[in-house]
Amino acid sequence: MSEPRINADRLWATIMETAAFGATPLGGVRRLALSEEDRQVRDWFVDACKAAGCEITIDTMGSIYAKRPGTNADAPPVACGSHLDTQPSGGKFDGILGVLAGLEVIRALNDAQVETAAPTMVINWTNEEGARFAPGLLASGVFAGVADQAEAFAVTDRDGVRFGDALAAIGYGGSVHPQAMELAAYYEMHIEQGPILEAEGKTIGIVEGAQGSRWYRIHVTGRDSHAGTTPMSMRRDAMQGAARLISSVASIALEHENAVGTVGIVEAGPGSINVVPGSARFTVDMRHPDDNVLAAMDRSLRSAAAELAEDRRLGVEVDQIWHSPPVAFDPACVGRVRDGAVAGGHSHREIVSGAGHDACYAARRVPTGMIFIPCEGGLSHNEKENARYEDVAAGADVLMRAMLATTAG
Amino acid sequence: MSEPRINADRLWATIMETAAFGATPLGGVRRLALSEEDRQVRDWFVDACKAAGCEITIDTMGSIYAKRPGTNADAPPVACGSHLDTQPSGGKFDGILGVLAGLEVIRALNDAQVETAAPTMVINWTNEEGARFAPGLLASGVFAGVADQAEAFAVTDRDGVRFGDALAAIGYGGSVHPQAMELAAYYEMHIEQGPILEAEGKTIGIVEGAQGSRWYRIHVTGRDSHAGTTPMSMRRDAMQGAARLISSVASIALEHENAVGTVGIVEAGPGSINVVPGSARFTVDMRHPDDNVLAAMDRSLRSAAAELAEDRRLGVEVDQIWHSPPVAFDPACVGRVRDGAVAGGHSHREIVSGAGHDACYAARRVPTGMIFIPCEGGLSHNEKENARYEDVAAGADVLMRAMLATTAG
Repeated sequence: MSEPRINADRLWATIMETAAFGATPLGGVRRLALSEEDRQVRDWFVDACKAAGCEITIDTMGSIYAKRPGTNADAPPVACGSHLDTQPSGGKFDGILGVLAGLEVIRALNDAQVETAAPTMVINWTNEEGARFAPGLLASGVFAGVADQAEAFAVTDRDGVRFGDALAAIGYGGSVHPQAMELAAYYEMHIEQGPILEAEGKTIGIVEGAQGSRWYRIHVTGRDSHAGTTPMSMRRDAMQGAARLISSVASIALEHENAVGTVGIVEAGPGSINVVPGSARFTVDMRHPDDNVLAAMDRSLRSAAAELAEDRRLGVEVDQIWHSPPVAFDPACVGRVRDGAVAGGHSHREIVSGAGHDACYAARRVPTGMIFIPCEGGLSHNEKENARYEDVAAGADVLMRAMLATTAG
Repeated sequence: MSEPRINADRLWATIMETAAFGATPLGGVRRLALSEEDRQVRDWFVDACKAAGCEITIDTMGSIYAKRPGTNADAPPVACGSHLDTQPSGGKFDGILGVLAGLEVIRALNDAQVETAAPTMVINWTNEEGARFAPGLLASGVFAGVADQAEAFAVTDRDGVRFGDALAAIGYGGSVHPQAMELAAYYEMHIEQGPILEAEGKTIGIVEGAQGSRWYRIHVTGRDSHAGTTPMSMRRDAMQGAARLISSVASIALEHENAVGTVGIVEAGPGSINVVPGSARFTVDMRHPDDNVLAAMDRSLRSAAAELAEDRRLGVEVDQIWHSPPVAFDPACVGRVRDGAVAGGHSHREIVSGAGHDACYAARRVPTGMIFIPCEGGLSHNEKENARYEDVAAGADVLMRAMLATTAG
């Protein structure tokens, strides 16, 4: 037994090797959950894990658990993982990195003939992206008890194919219920999908948690009228009202440190160049790491809507369609990630995940931590998504150190 | 020969009678240009005019000219008119009122056995609305030399039917070119299609001209990014930029008396609730009676766009797609409309047309005036479009007085 070391070349080559399953002409990956490409990469992954001496378990949601035995066979495993499915125009790293870094950890432990007390494990969660079967985080959601398996099975894609049938069709319907799987801890390494680490020149993001989010649909109603003949003073212009409220979404986010606010979909009705719109619909996505701040932002949004309605004689309906509270990761796991970054000599900073990850659901059942590495330009969900060789290696090093520290108890 | 008087009951009954051609369940009219319903109302109109002693001429664009002879057969006729075609969900008054009020004038002159020196005439212009064959004002445009007849004939509807073929199919392709038609003057009575007369309790709008308009397509470009992971300071949010510029459109209009500014179509791209939009497209419609003011508004819009681009690191393209200069009606015709309102004892005010009318094109070739009457709630292009019996009668009275004053030379 020697000091285990991540083999950066092998990890990079493995990433490029799996990128062939669903490769797109522009260098990205299209590997929708439970597609033929997903089956191919799963088969590859199972073979690679078996070759690395792992025992494979498939749960009823199709998630793959590859366990490297420990000296204490009864101890629950120290796990890591992420997902091998991608967006329709996805990249080579989102999700994939966390699974293959886990495989590299196991290979590195093998190379150094390290024996751990608790087993170690790599997990490939089914359908993180939700691009084919919405919503995402479906398998980790069932693992966490947030989602119901029967409902998950009934979800259909655009062609009307049921999740359960698609899972059976690729041969990945297992027999163990996700909630029967016990883990000592769970770590997930992932690209940041944002620009902070790159902008600050840091290699490792020590993820303290994930921010909470609230989603809304807002409908402003006024009165359709002729764009040429209706004086400004007599208008009830829903789009002008919406523009004010859209600006408020940004203002509200700017009032709170680390808050974000986004209006992603906007539609004016009836939608004619020479008709004053009597209707305007738009969406709002507001996020913050602190649920109290998020609640304050919610109150500000509703106040702004009420003021608008009064000032402009408009109807303003604010319909919250989603509320995901913030997640705080386990302090011990976060500490082991920090210790790993320090021990490995990697520059680092604390960070809060802006996006949702399987780790956010795993955290509901087991002590969880996450490791971020930079991605080029903060770009993700894009065929041009990219990460640097050195950062990939550093992230895997921190993952291995955190897992080993956990197996040591 | 006695003093001619408008028969308000007959005029109202005639409006209701023609509303049967293309009547909709909600009390409106659907009578698209050159449709079977248009043919029916045209046949009715030709018969009614013949019964009133008129000679009918059909021009090559299908417009119908019904002439009541004068004592001076060589004098060009004093004309009035409007259009019998409607929007897909149109009302009983828009356009129709001007044609049928003209018919009522002729009937009233007949009843009183009035002989005029110059002939009088009622015109039904083809395809004012442009709802089936875009653009509108097509026949009056050819009359004015603004539109080319060969191009007009080649315009197709959604089913690919050519204007020229549709015209021939309903049997209304005449032999006289519109530019061969000579008129001494042209008057058009119309509902205001706006709220001003109703709000001020005035019966007659003495239309001094039509405002000018400029139409734009604006494209704001930033960068698509993740709504959860991209800090506010690092965003290039095209929709937030668009919201600011949309607000500027209203501000610019409010800076100039009698100006209007409208954003009728808005679209954020890629159009996902959790993606910061890298693209936002919208339209702008700005109008003012004075072309110099309209030019100043254009400069303000372009300045606001340039400032936005600089402040927010966004691309902002401002593409003007249409410029229609203001129209000033003939002072003598406007004066005769005013005199008619005074003589008839009708409350009145000067007004500028916000919308385009056949009169705006007619004014390019012949002395022209317009008469507005109120419509309920300013509503038009709507099945609920409505006008009051008394106002309809008053408008026809002013039309008759203005025409008689013109025939007297």
